Amino acid sequence: MKNDLQIAKEIELKPIIEIAKQLGIEDEVECYGKYKAKIDLSVMNQNKKDGKLVLVTAISPTKAGEGKTTMTVGLGQGFYHIDKKSVIALREPSLGPVMGLKGGATGGGYSQVLPMEDLNLHFTGDIHAITTANNAICALLDNHMYQGNECNIDPTKIVFKRCLDLNDRTLRDITIGQGSKVNGIERKDGFNITVASEIMAILCLATSLEDLKARIGNIIVAYTPDDHPVHVKDLKIEGAIAMLLKDAIKPNLVQTCEHTPAIVHGGPFANIAHGCNSIIATKTALKLGDYVITEAGFGADLGAEKFLDIKCREGKLTPDCVVIVATIRALKMHGGVEYEDLKEENVEALSKGIENLAKHIDSITQFNLPYIVAVNQFTHDTEAELEFLTSWCEQNNHPCEIANVWLNGGAGAKQLATRVVSLIEENNQTFNQIYERNQTLEEKILTIAQKIYGARGVNYTDEAKAQLETIKKLGYEDYLVCMAKTPVSLSDDPKVLGRPTDFDITIREVRISAGAGFIVCLTGNVLTMPGLPKEPAALKMDVTPEGECIGLF
Amino acid sequence: MKNDLQIAKEIELKPIIEIAKQLGIEDEVECYGKYKAKIDLSVMNQNKKDGKLVLVTAISPTKAGEGKTTMTVGLGQGFYHIDKKSVIALREPSLGPVMGLKGGATGGGYSQVLPMEDLNLHFTGDIHAITTANNAICALLDNHMYQGNECNIDPTKIVFKRCLDLNDRTLRDITIGQGSKVNGIERKDGFNITVASEIMAILCLATSLEDLKARIGNIIVAYTPDDHPVHVKDLKIEGAIAMLLKDAIKPNLVQTCEHTPAIVHGGPFANIAHGCNSIIATKTALKLGDYVITEAGFGADLGAEKFLDIKCREGKLTPDCVVIVATIRALKMHGGVEYEDLKEENVEALSKGIENLAKHIDSITQFNLPYIVAVNQFTHDTEAELEFLTSWCEQNNHPCEIANVWLNGGAGAKQLATRVVSLIEENNQTFNQIYERNQTLEEKILTIAQKIYGARGVNYTDEAKAQLETIKKLGYEDYLVCMAKTPVSLSDDPKVLGRPTDFDITIREVRISAGAGFIVCLTGNVLTMPGLPKEPAALKMDVTPEGECIGLF
Repeated sequence: MKNDLQIAKEIELKPIIEIAKQLGIEDEVECYGKYKAKIDLSVMNQNKKDGKLVLVTAISPTKAGEGKTTMTVGLGQGFYHIDKKSVIALREPSLGPVMGLKGGATGGGYSQVLPMEDLNLHFTGDIHAITTANNAICALLDNHMYQGNECNIDPTKIVFKRCLDLNDRTLRDITIGQGSKVNGIERKDGFNITVASEIMAILCLATSLEDLKARIGNIIVAYTPDDHPVHVKDLKIEGAIAMLLKDAIKPNLVQTCEHTPAIVHGGPFANIAHGCNSIIATKTALKLGDYVITEAGFGADLGAEKFLDIKCREGKLTPDCVVIVATIRALKMHGGVEYEDLKEENVEALSKGIENLAKHIDSITQFNLPYIVAVNQFTHDTEAELEFLTSWCEQNNHPCEIANVWLNGGAGAKQLATRVVSLIEENNQTFNQIYERNQTLEEKILTIAQKIYGARGVNYTDEAKAQLETIKKLGYEDYLVCMAKTPVSLSDDPKVLGRPTDFDITIREVRISAGAGFIVCLTGNVLTMPGLPKEPAALKMDVTPEGECIGLF
Repeated sequence: MKNDLQIAKEIELKPIIEIAKQLGIEDEVECYGKYKAKIDLSVMNQNKKDGKLVLVTAISPTKAGEGKTTMTVGLGQGFYHIDKKSVIALREPSLGPVMGLKGGATGGGYSQVLPMEDLNLHFTGDIHAITTANNAICALLDNHMYQGNECNIDPTKIVFKRCLDLNDRTLRDITIGQGSKVNGIERKDGFNITVASEIMAILCLATSLEDLKARIGNIIVAYTPDDHPVHVKDLKIEGAIAMLLKDAIKPNLVQTCEHTPAIVHGGPFANIAHGCNSIIATKTALKLGDYVITEAGFGADLGAEKFLDIKCREGKLTPDCVVIVATIRALKMHGGVEYEDLKEENVEALSKGIENLAKHIDSITQFNLPYIVAVNQFTHDTEAELEFLTSWCEQNNHPCEIANVWLNGGAGAKQLATRVVSLIEENNQTFNQIYERNQTLEEKILTIAQKIYGARGVNYTDEAKAQLETIKKLGYEDYLVCMAKTPVSLSDDPKVLGRPTDFDITIREVRISAGAGFIVCLTGNVLTMPGLPKEPAALKMDVTPEGECIGLF
């Protein structure tokens, strides 16, 4: 069988300007090479009715993922098979997992966004601009202290870290400013991966360049010895930092294997950040398509919860339908099967693991949204397994469709697209978030833990308690909550699969993202700088003398 | 008077595709936005006669620079005023000085390369790709040690540092891998500025993507406990790293205020690296223009020496003429005038400081090349001062032209262009490098110190001596020499101006750049990661809600 890169290379792409013409925005794009373009922010502000918004989420995934991006692309393509105009809105891949575990994150088979080499490498430079903006703040902050420290920053109370878009565990905990005095002030520091940075979150939540600058100004970078916050605006650099992001804020237009328009913009991880593409990209897509298909990272407990509670609130968005991607493989994993044995038929394990799907369905219903289960079919799935899953859905009144979008592209999602259209037309529910802004932070956290994770309660470490107190004293009680949690389990323990009950969530640390407008709660052992595996994907990568990529998949 | 950014904004640029058409390469470019394009490597390999190569260098500059880029752009434009087809070849600006001291590096007045906002910020992403490639090597190296250390790397003998394209003194000396064991192996490390990295040097010296990959493979990253070198190729990642640079290796096409084509590609600093734009860019320009005007950083002791001894040798290039930029201000500085008083007339100081110009002229003659002094006129220069300078040149038989390219653009360099054409036509000298490959490393270093800096001799610290021994043992005696030295003085002491005599150069440290093919000799206190000044340029920068840049100059 051909791999993703081979399939991608066989597709003859249309010049991106043709895709732009098809959308009526040929005068509002700037081409970056033949197959990528940046869309002007004016498109988002057109006086035009918005399309329908479809969110694709998933059950708790295996380490290989559930094919959520593949399903999103396949479904987006599928709409054209039933004569509906759709636009896909996705996140930009981070180089960390590309070079590390996954090797690429642009869908698969005949449901890919292209050109996948560009998307998986530097794309239009957005993530590099974010890295640069983040690290410019750090350099200017350390220089501020070195040159007299007018803002009276306590070097032991700096909370804004440097970042790189790589998996690099040795940069998690470092000491900087060592050696001679001319090397600045010695202090503890650390790097996050760029996709977990507050600048990435801000870029994805901003609704204009002005809003972006204001949010950057509000970032808390440090505290004084008597605990007064020092913001980016106190350093008088929010203008320079926003300037570094003036192009990165514009959403990117590409196409799929079937030339369906796709807007790929922003890329926070869903376990350690809010996990959604940018509000600007989604709003732009809603002006251009009758149906906008977007995804949020990992399972419905992570990306979807934050999509619905954070992104939809900040962007004043109302989703019209949720697609929950499930695979036979992952459900068997939740039923106790080892990763190596997932290719073998095991209906019993499937029948046990299906409780994970049940919980995610239950979570989506908490938001009063119509949903459908989309089974991402794999070649090893047996008739008996597929039959069991669809029967279970039927018995429990859960809409369900099998979609083989990897192999068949949009044609594989024709039924699914038809059902999504019906669900949207028949929907008479009113979308609601699961918590309100004016609840206390602890109430908001508990609500997520109970309603979405199925937890009994929430524990706080002493450190987290103290941090919450500081946050309240600073007046951020009305902020939203961004949970950082393992994607593998509904609990905060990656070893607990299926649908755990009778467990508590432990909040280890609480960070304030005053620019993004939320607090980040770190649970379990989740880290904001990943490491590389024993055999990184980079070892298999190569480039030919003609510039053809090898080993991206 | 209008500033550079205001002038830049008034110019109506041509779509870059028109510039490409004018050069006959419209099918060989990929547009990055309307005004930037990447040129395919095939252009460089066209079977076509090369144009003439003109190098622009300067005397030892003031901290504001001598306007070398401005003169290069002005001269390039000037050729069109005498009906000659020229192409300009420049380096890409680094964000370090842009955010720090200088605020921009794309020429000035009516002799700028444009769009200056893009050029000074992220441009086409080349430098970010280099930063990423560099740091991916580091992450993969540290991961290699963490995952079993098959190559037997000694963590105290790692010589390949991380990098960022920012001025950030606190990252010079750091300790990484601290905290819990899962954070990798604790060790000393440090960051260089990207433009001083070996990857940047390699990108600028490579003649093809294949050559780039081979050079990356040859980088020495570390040593084993018994001092065997460990290369990038031993980690089996040269393919992945070259893949990260597959687009960065392509030269970038932009235009000047007068729509003269300019190829802007690669940007090593000239004090701490080899200071020239890429060989690929220069070779591409030589296929496209009858005259190619290029520059090398800082004074003739730094950029020009390395251009002639390193870049021309690696790229098999023969320059046809050298332009030495001088300013009245800088010559007065060399005559003892304080920076604050440089605007006042002082012919006596000028007559003393002119010895600095004399030395740089002398250095260029060592290479058997025709040259001309180009006086970059400033508004504060007086008649008497200009008269003194031109008379001195006349008396000493040095060709000389005053050129006010800031104010008059190409028209200000019409005479200069005419003289350059004559000098090239009349030239019957044969270009030679000042040292030979097969000399010992110490001989090569001494030759540069004596012939170019005017030094008596060279001292080595014990550390440098030991490093030289290692380098010889490893078989790199035939490597070229890249000196790292202050640009302010001909000596290694920034306080000594004019034309110092009776001094020695001290080599503090010798690094091997086995991929680039040279050794780097660090003299005096030169640092490979700059710091920010007390009032960084970033403080004055801003962006309007419409995305217009403020404070780049």
